Amino acid sequence: MSMVDVPVALLGYGTVGAAVDRLLTENAADIERSTGHRLRVVRALVRDPERERSRAPAPGVLTSDFAAIRDDPSVAVVAEVMGGLEPTGDHVLELLHAGKPVVSANKQLIARRGAELLSAASEAGVQLRFEASVCAAIPVIKVLREALVATNVHRVLGIVNGTTNFILTEMEAGAGYQEALAEAQRLGFAEADPTEDVSGADAAAKMAILATIAFGSRVTLDDVRFEGIESVSRADVAAAREMDMVVRLIGAATLVDGKLDVRVGPALVDSHHPLASVEGAFNAVMLQGDAIREITLEGPGAGGLETASAVVADIVGVIGTTGTGFLQNDACWRTLERLPPGELRSPYYVRLAVEDRAGVLAHVALRLAAHGVSVARLVQHQEDGSATLHVVTHEAPGGALADALAEVAALPETKSPPGALPVVSDRGVPGLGWA
Amino acid sequence: MSMVDVPVALLGYGTVGAAVDRLLTENAADIERSTGHRLRVVRALVRDPERERSRAPAPGVLTSDFAAIRDDPSVAVVAEVMGGLEPTGDHVLELLHAGKPVVSANKQLIARRGAELLSAASEAGVQLRFEASVCAAIPVIKVLREALVATNVHRVLGIVNGTTNFILTEMEAGAGYQEALAEAQRLGFAEADPTEDVSGADAAAKMAILATIAFGSRVTLDDVRFEGIESVSRADVAAAREMDMVVRLIGAATLVDGKLDVRVGPALVDSHHPLASVEGAFNAVMLQGDAIREITLEGPGAGGLETASAVVADIVGVIGTTGTGFLQNDACWRTLERLPPGELRSPYYVRLAVEDRAGVLAHVALRLAAHGVSVARLVQHQEDGSATLHVVTHEAPGGALADALAEVAALPETKSPPGALPVVSDRGVPGLGWA
Repeated sequence: MSMVDVPVALLGYGTVGAAVDRLLTENAADIERSTGHRLRVVRALVRDPERERSRAPAPGVLTSDFAAIRDDPSVAVVAEVMGGLEPTGDHVLELLHAGKPVVSANKQLIARRGAELLSAASEAGVQLRFEASVCAAIPVIKVLREALVATNVHRVLGIVNGTTNFILTEMEAGAGYQEALAEAQRLGFAEADPTEDVSGADAAAKMAILATIAFGSRVTLDDVRFEGIESVSRADVAAAREMDMVVRLIGAATLVDGKLDVRVGPALVDSHHPLASVEGAFNAVMLQGDAIREITLEGPGAGGLETASAVVADIVGVIGTTGTGFLQNDACWRTLERLPPGELRSPYYVRLAVEDRAGVLAHVALRLAAHGVSVARLVQHQEDGSATLHVVTHEAPGGALADALAEVAALPETKSPPGALPVVSDRGVPGLGWA
Repeated sequence: MSMVDVPVALLGYGTVGAAVDRLLTENAADIERSTGHRLRVVRALVRDPERERSRAPAPGVLTSDFAAIRDDPSVAVVAEVMGGLEPTGDHVLELLHAGKPVVSANKQLIARRGAELLSAASEAGVQLRFEASVCAAIPVIKVLREALVATNVHRVLGIVNGTTNFILTEMEAGAGYQEALAEAQRLGFAEADPTEDVSGADAAAKMAILATIAFGSRVTLDDVRFEGIESVSRADVAAAREMDMVVRLIGAATLVDGKLDVRVGPALVDSHHPLASVEGAFNAVMLQGDAIREITLEGPGAGGLETASAVVADIVGVIGTTGTGFLQNDACWRTLERLPPGELRSPYYVRLAVEDRAGVLAHVALRLAAHGVSVARLVQHQEDGSATLHVVTHEAPGGALADALAEVAALPETKSPPGALPVVSDRGVPGLGWA
């Protein structure tokens, strides 16, 4: 196969776009060795081509004319690194309709319009890849789509937001939530307005993308139930430690009897579980399937260069598979029902403030048992006439636990409404759940 | 792209071969959706086609005639799952010469003859893939070759042998070496003759393969310095714990100023390092590169179904990229010098039994300092007139440490020759080394 010059276009030339240009240039020889092709950025769409830039592309590359990219028959692949939903989404759609493969780093776009775009790509017989939209350089989408084609993935568990993982790791080291957040902001791990991260919304978008690819069914942001870490307290972190667990913001996409459930929320993770050792701003995703048991990928989940590295890998992936039919059928090939939220099974941690007198524990256990929730571990702390119960249950449906806890809350001995968090338990636990 | 029937041949139809056949059959629809092609096993080379088998392939598939596979123009890809070096190696070579892409699960073959086979594949313009030869279903070779094409990987650190990791995890829980080995044998994690695993030889073969692919230079088993875990003692494990570390058998392939070093040996791993949390028979590989910082992949490193899953992914990879020029240049494109063994830098843990009197510590520190080795942490335990020094050094060349320890051993206060183990330290430590 003789070397062929492959013109690449970018939508956007900010931090990631400039880094993609640089990586394509600096690694041209490596890429040529891998693909047999020489990749070169020939056009980049920007609002103002005249503006001064820290890295300037070759003369004539910058353009403000989208049509000059869409209608250039020589452009073999387009990388969307401009972000935002509009006009980005329509640009991507037009490019796919025009028969151009597209690589996108845009989490919000793929989480909201991924199924529509994948379907447009499939109709046009071109590829849409978006590794960089989830966890930067961690190649989780490539592994899901290409390495696990012979395994039915039934569960994706992930720490997919670095900001919240940094904050929770700091809290483990003794900080309070506000203090840990301030430190994250000081180090650049959190925005001045951290809502998108700490609310779980960012993680929810990533889980929507991962669930779509893992299960082959459209999952949008609206399908993901999410909860953030704002209400995680030092007491939660301390209780977790006492149980030999840690608190993490866990995204979970689960396939149960052909129905899917995707959610994000704080959970207690057993210290022997691979996700428990993910510290600081790192991300990790565990894929569970029948032929592979589980594979976990860990790494930095953000960063301009890391993101650009994933974009370049996707461009290379497109070039390396063009014309073979690979990844050109609609990735959303089936429509899966949503599991009713209360039906997802998981072990739970429950904390309960009660009066310290004989029989209380029996009353609580009775209420749990009445709803089919059995106790796996229990620790009781007593002081000044009151007691705190720390309970880890066996796997139970979330709805049954909620019903049991409503009754426990109504007991005269209960001092405040009980709090519950799902438990992510050790590898190899059969039927490991989450709710 | 219309669906095309793709005939696949197998060399071997044992556990892995039968599982490949089953996965291709059971996942035919998924594979067709991914690739646009329907893959089907049409021939499988076995010694005795008449022998009774637990899973029987379709009638007429089994053959004892290698030429029937090599010379069948319809066979699009061959999976080598027969193991052994001969005649396997010659079969693979003949297939490549005949223009057939080959997928191999054969660690020993690739570790010994990988460069030759890759070069033959390149000459013939076909692919040779061997994901299943290292860590079963963990897609580390795919990630190295395809996802990290725009990053210069300068280091591969891995726990690539499940047997030894199981034994070391058991020792952490309090068992002695012999007891842990017996338990591994009882559970089927270790062979009756465990030499290949516990000596580090198995890990060395895997590291040779990973180094070859990561650095693009031929590395054979003979280039890998390896040491096993037979001499790891309870005292090592206990000392590690005291330093907040764990003992692991670590494979390390390092590129230093254009020279490479590949070795396997026991090391102390900082408890916050991603490799420290790899427990039981699991494997993990960390890839460090300039654009990605580090990515760690973890999962079960063995198993028939897991291995078959990787073989199928490779077959799909071949089908998905055929004709594009992807991965068809020789992966061993350069020849790298070997770093002289003593030059590799690493922090070290040193344990030293000395007489308990004033000035001993100063003598030891002086000998270390004379060779440029500085002390990062030190713990001293005293009992009955003797003392044990536990020292963690800053990064130093292995040769300099060895010279310093020879002098320390000769001090009159030193009671027995000091032992040293490299330290694998936390993520983000600049210049993190190993020797």
